[in-house]
Amino acid sequence: MQIGKVKGSVVATQKDEKLADLKLLVVEVVTHRNEATDRYVVAVDAVDAGPGDVVLFATGSSARQTSLTDNKPCDAVIMAIVDSWDLGGPNVYEKWTDT
Amino acid sequence: MQIGKVKGSVVATQKDEKLADLKLLVVEVVTHRNEATDRYVVAVDAVDAGPGDVVLFATGSSARQTSLTDNKPCDAVIMAIVDSWDLGGPNVYEKWTDT
Amino acid sequence: MQIGKVKGSVVATQKDEKLADLKLLVVEVVTHRNEATDRYVVAVDAVDAGPGDVVLFATGSSARQTSLTDNKPCDAVIMAIVDSWDLGGPNVYEKWTDT
Amino acid sequence: MQIGKVKGSVVATQKDEKLADLKLLVVEVVTHRNEATDRYVVAVDAVDAGPGDVVLFATGSSARQTSLTDNKPCDAVIMAIVDSWDLGGPNVYEKWTDT
Amino acid sequence: MQIGKVKGSVVATQKDEKLADLKLLVVEVVTHRNEATDRYVVAVDAVDAGPGDVVLFATGSSARQTSLTDNKPCDAVIMAIVDSWDLGGPNVYEKWTDT
Repeated sequence: MQIGKVKGSVVATQKDEKLADLKLLVVEVVTHRNEATDRYVVAVDAVDAGPGDVVLFATGSSARQTSLTDNKPCDAVIMAIVDSWDLGGPNVYEKWTDT
Repeated sequence: MQIGKVKGSVVATQKDEKLADLKLLVVEVVTHRNEATDRYVVAVDAVDAGPGDVVLFATGSSARQTSLTDNKPCDAVIMAIVDSWDLGGPNVYEKWTDT
Repeated sequence: MQIGKVKGSVVATQKDEKLADLKLLVVEVVTHRNEATDRYVVAVDAVDAGPGDVVLFATGSSARQTSLTDNKPCDAVIMAIVDSWDLGGPNVYEKWTDT
Repeated sequence: MQIGKVKGSVVATQKDEKLADLKLLVVEVVTHRNEATDRYVVAVDAVDAGPGDVVLFATGSSARQTSLTDNKPCDAVIMAIVDSWDLGGPNVYEKWTDT
Repeated sequence: MQIGKVKGSVVATQKDEKLADLKLLVVEVVTHRNEATDRYVVAVDAVDAGPGDVVLFATGSSARQTSLTDNKPCDAVIMAIVDSWDLGGPNVYEKWTDT
């Protein structure tokens, strides 16, 4: 998994029928030091995430292992909202102090 | 998933029999800020897309989860045509204003 | 899928028994503008390709979806020989004018 | 598989229900010469690893082949703690001399 | 598949039980012109390879398609020892002249 920040959402009305009702979010990947990168992924939201949330996403076939994405043409899923993480010292990120 | 712009199509008559009748499109990957990149993918079209369309594509085993691509040697599929997306402010891309 | 040019072949006599009789080709990846890159893949040939041919290859689990590669430890397969492709204008590549 | 060093852990209370009780560790990828890189992965711990441990991790569908991660939306798993490795000469890394 | 050179091996006693008895080798990836790269992979050996051997390795779910790696948390496998390869001219590599 990688960590990312939800930046916005994608609207698509003409799509494979299996994708009906799935929320598609634009996630900007961050480093483990919580630095922005230029990489992104469009991921299905399985945990009621929204813009500004820092999240974990899984890719590949693992992205189909939620009840929401099972058997669907989806290669990225947000499967957790991050509260905090550390690298052996103080927290690198804390949801409750994120502004 | 990633966002891309359909640029053209690939013609191939000598191919694995499972690929008969599939439309193969050349998709140039764009950033989440809608900037062109040098990366591309050849994807099977599952949503009647065409040149100029901005699309979502899925890769890997997820590309086989449409009725069109099931059990086929296809590792990329266009599964949605994008109407618009945003990064928390005004839309970065809008199909109806795209020229 | 990506587009590549077949450059040569790999000889390997000591190999997993499932790989017996499979032809292994060295494919140099090209850009969608038909420029050479430094990237390559060794792929199983499922379409009777040979040196000089411009081909499509699929990677990952999708590479096992041909009758030739089913259930085999193969992560790349040539599943089409390219006749031509375009990017919205004249053909970028044409097999019949390739020298 | 790649080699990495466990740096810390991720706390996430709002997550897919299949992820309950899984320990999520931040692993910094190292080169085969045991040099730090800027790449990382968040991996499920299947071997009781902790900060400072040098580990092997597997990604993709292979990350779901432990009893802990089976059928879960997890694309990276720590499946071994490294004791040592070499590149044909003296050990590049030894757990018992790592400080 | 990619081509690599076996450089050494990894020792790991604390590991997922499915990995017992598997030999883990450090493989340095080479280009198709047989140039060293900085990339590596730790792969399970399915063909009795050893340091100095030039090998083919498969990654992802395809790495689990040998009898040795079936259903195991392994994302890379050495499935062939390379005798030689060419790029349309003289051999780029020959095992019998490799020193």
